Amino acid sequence: MLSTITLDRTSRAPLYRQIGEQIKEAIAEGRLPAGAQLPTVRQLAATLGVTRLTVQTAYAELQSGGWLEATVGRGTFVSIQATMQPRWSAVNGAATPATVIGDILQMGQAQGMRSLASASPDPELFPGAEFWASLDMQRAHTGLVGGYGAAQGDALLRIELAAHLSERGVAATADDVLVVAGVTQGVGLAAQALAQPGDSVLVEQPTYVGFLHQLRAYGLQPCAAPVDSDGPALDVVEQVAAQQRIRFFYTIPAFQNPTGCCMTPARKARLLEVADRYDFYIIEDDLYGWLAYDDAPPAPLKAEDASQRVIYVTSFSKTLMPGLRLGALVAPPALRERLTALRIAADLGSPLLLQRALATFLQRGDFRRHLRRTLPVYRQRRDATLRALDASMPPGVQWTRPHGGLCCWLTLPPHPGMGDVPRLALQQGWAVAPGSVFLPGASANHHLRICFGALPEDAIRRGVEVLGEVIRQQLIHASSPANALDEWLPLL
Amino acid sequence: MLSTITLDRTSRAPLYRQIGEQIKEAIAEGRLPAGAQLPTVRQLAATLGVTRLTVQTAYAELQSGGWLEATVGRGTFVSIQATMQPRWSAVNGAATPATVIGDILQMGQAQGMRSLASASPDPELFPGAEFWASLDMQRAHTGLVGGYGAAQGDALLRIELAAHLSERGVAATADDVLVVAGVTQGVGLAAQALAQPGDSVLVEQPTYVGFLHQLRAYGLQPCAAPVDSDGPALDVVEQVAAQQRIRFFYTIPAFQNPTGCCMTPARKARLLEVADRYDFYIIEDDLYGWLAYDDAPPAPLKAEDASQRVIYVTSFSKTLMPGLRLGALVAPPALRERLTALRIAADLGSPLLLQRALATFLQRGDFRRHLRRTLPVYRQRRDATLRALDASMPPGVQWTRPHGGLCCWLTLPPHPGMGDVPRLALQQGWAVAPGSVFLPGASANHHLRICFGALPEDAIRRGVEVLGEVIRQQLIHASSPANALDEWLPLL
Repeated sequence: MLSTITLDRTSRAPLYRQIGEQIKEAIAEGRLPAGAQLPTVRQLAATLGVTRLTVQTAYAELQSGGWLEATVGRGTFVSIQATMQPRWSAVNGAATPATVIGDILQMGQAQGMRSLASASPDPELFPGAEFWASLDMQRAHTGLVGGYGAAQGDALLRIELAAHLSERGVAATADDVLVVAGVTQGVGLAAQALAQPGDSVLVEQPTYVGFLHQLRAYGLQPCAAPVDSDGPALDVVEQVAAQQRIRFFYTIPAFQNPTGCCMTPARKARLLEVADRYDFYIIEDDLYGWLAYDDAPPAPLKAEDASQRVIYVTSFSKTLMPGLRLGALVAPPALRERLTALRIAADLGSPLLLQRALATFLQRGDFRRHLRRTLPVYRQRRDATLRALDASMPPGVQWTRPHGGLCCWLTLPPHPGMGDVPRLALQQGWAVAPGSVFLPGASANHHLRICFGALPEDAIRRGVEVLGEVIRQQLIHASSPANALDEWLPLL
Repeated sequence: MLSTITLDRTSRAPLYRQIGEQIKEAIAEGRLPAGAQLPTVRQLAATLGVTRLTVQTAYAELQSGGWLEATVGRGTFVSIQATMQPRWSAVNGAATPATVIGDILQMGQAQGMRSLASASPDPELFPGAEFWASLDMQRAHTGLVGGYGAAQGDALLRIELAAHLSERGVAATADDVLVVAGVTQGVGLAAQALAQPGDSVLVEQPTYVGFLHQLRAYGLQPCAAPVDSDGPALDVVEQVAAQQRIRFFYTIPAFQNPTGCCMTPARKARLLEVADRYDFYIIEDDLYGWLAYDDAPPAPLKAEDASQRVIYVTSFSKTLMPGLRLGALVAPPALRERLTALRIAADLGSPLLLQRALATFLQRGDFRRHLRRTLPVYRQRRDATLRALDASMPPGVQWTRPHGGLCCWLTLPPHPGMGDVPRLALQQGWAVAPGSVFLPGASANHHLRICFGALPEDAIRRGVEVLGEVIRQQLIHASSPANALDEWLPLL
């Protein structure tokens, strides 16, 4: 049944991925029906002349993606779902933040090179040799790095992080830094430290879907400040803050997710002044701040935080590797003890081995070298994305033109057929993130987020072409536009 | 000033630790006063003929332990605290769960071989070679393991975890398993899934200090069921559950932390029945269940969970290495979606590299081999602990005689001088955990937890001797016993 698998050992694609892709094809084309049993790892490895780990990895990927099901002692089978529906649950019915995040997390593994949905860096660009060199240097200290570390984070890493953050204009000593397991954990701890269930908080609209999910999980009520190409609407921020007690404002000032836009210096200054006046904190998500393609990176709010109102969070998920799950948080002194206590409550701290490997990586200057090497690649992909959008989108579609980051935000005509675009694109083999999940206070479904970080330029072009054609067909064939203006203030 | 450092390159103690210990001695003896500047890493490395990483590691350890302070660009200095007070903040004034956990996490690094406070396995016993071999096998898949994974956990690891859990009698498929960043995260997610701030929950008394910290952080109200050598008092459980709505009961049935006791099969059966009758969930912490020294490990509650009331959590922190920060959770089907959503909200998931390394480690049978090799060592240490207690404790002191796990619980006479014992022992260079922090519903301070996992037998003997002598002196010289019976039902 799998006798048709052929491996190209000269290809850059890893063997496990070649195997996985061909099994997926066999399932999609019906050659492997639901419930069919696959050969054992040992059998397939022997047949193909590869290691068992390679086959295991391929099977595990397919299982993560929902294509296969494995039962210990019985075997591995084609899952029933795999043959019944597209693999993106969020486009079949209710797209909640949790289902979309779950889809996006799996998409990278399951769909390989055909996703515009995940704001991931390109795995092909991961600094593998340098990272493993840094990891190998911890080998002599297994007893140490295998043990518990301080919940605040390893001191050696915090020293390096303090130096690292100074390059963004954030003045912090090693003692000021809390190591976090990525920006998601950092902003989640900040939200828990500042607000109680039922409290109102301010977010940008659109904003990071993961944070909207956290607000829901922790029972916090989001009020939305619409974003335009200069940043969030501060009149709305002021208006909301004047009407009710606001605990914090969550913002992504640099290369915002999902729009790619930056807050202007004037708005940043005014935001700090408004926060002071209405006495709320600012949670600053600086995940994308390093990825500037046209000018120097914009300074973060934290660099001007004279009143100690900003909790600054960043990570290495976009600049190095998401799999590190490591980032840094710098909070005003009054909040530090509570944040460390919440980190203890969450998980006691991050794996010391990875913390030390990152410290070594930073200490050797590998981060700077890696950024110098990768920024031009991402710049070209941003350019390719904008060229493809210019060439392929039907009239009436608008999009942002980001100077950095990994995302671009599309605003389609407010036509009832637009909500089906992600599903129809997926049927053509292309995943994009539906815009609705990034909107806290609206139900508009005529937006899309497309991410260009993980795809080569020609793939971006093909994907945007497919997307343009899907939108064009929907505009022609789906029922006529609704009359009612959408409740959401459109971007741009 | 550090010219006196001498390194023994034939010693098993790593060079960085030898350096660290000698700097600590110099500080303790006043040869290095507060504020003194240390040589730069480069200078000291050159002087001693070691790599810079070695000196860096030593300095970082000392900084974690509060002995040194480093400022980027200025240098490294002896901290003022280091010369003023013992390094255990919890014994100076209010011992809150957070301060004690913070102390314990740092203790391993800062105090080296002189801590009976942390329930850690022995770093000397970590399976270094096998773990690094498993890690090295991921090197070919850096693009994959450096990326985002499914929040539920890597499919390959979940397959191995399902087989692993079946050895504890827990029937679970890979789909049933949620990978967690250790037991602390697992039980914390379970608590958040089951209860809202203000809700009442049941815990054992004494119990895991980290969970008491989580209850406080999440605003949950603990009701306490005292533990005796057969497990928690189920009459108290029933009584509390009859009086108020209880969301869950958190229990450590096997080799309980801090007592080392096991719940009897009869109590386990009755607890499941009571949970059914009063409609509450059970959060089962099976962190220590593998570490059985005298008989087969006791079956977990989850193995008899016909009514789907048990959320089972375990990890590899005590059996392999705490630094992995990896464990497994198996919940009733009704709770799974919510738990995965909470994991997404917490941190999106665990580092894929470490998940894959653990999967490989399990798949190769290294876990079983490691357990076979280490259990006899821990058994001997348990025996040495009990022998030392028999020999060294003054009359009136009682202690548990655990058949597994890493902890032993001491009940001292209810004498007012007993609260000072941890501080006085620390002055003699020995850290023990004050019992008060393990007690949710009492303020008794005449208990101690001592942990025997991380120390060789002769060190255990010396530590228990010092402790016995401190207690003896306090019984003689501190003021006379209080008349009032303590409010807490003593264990044993």
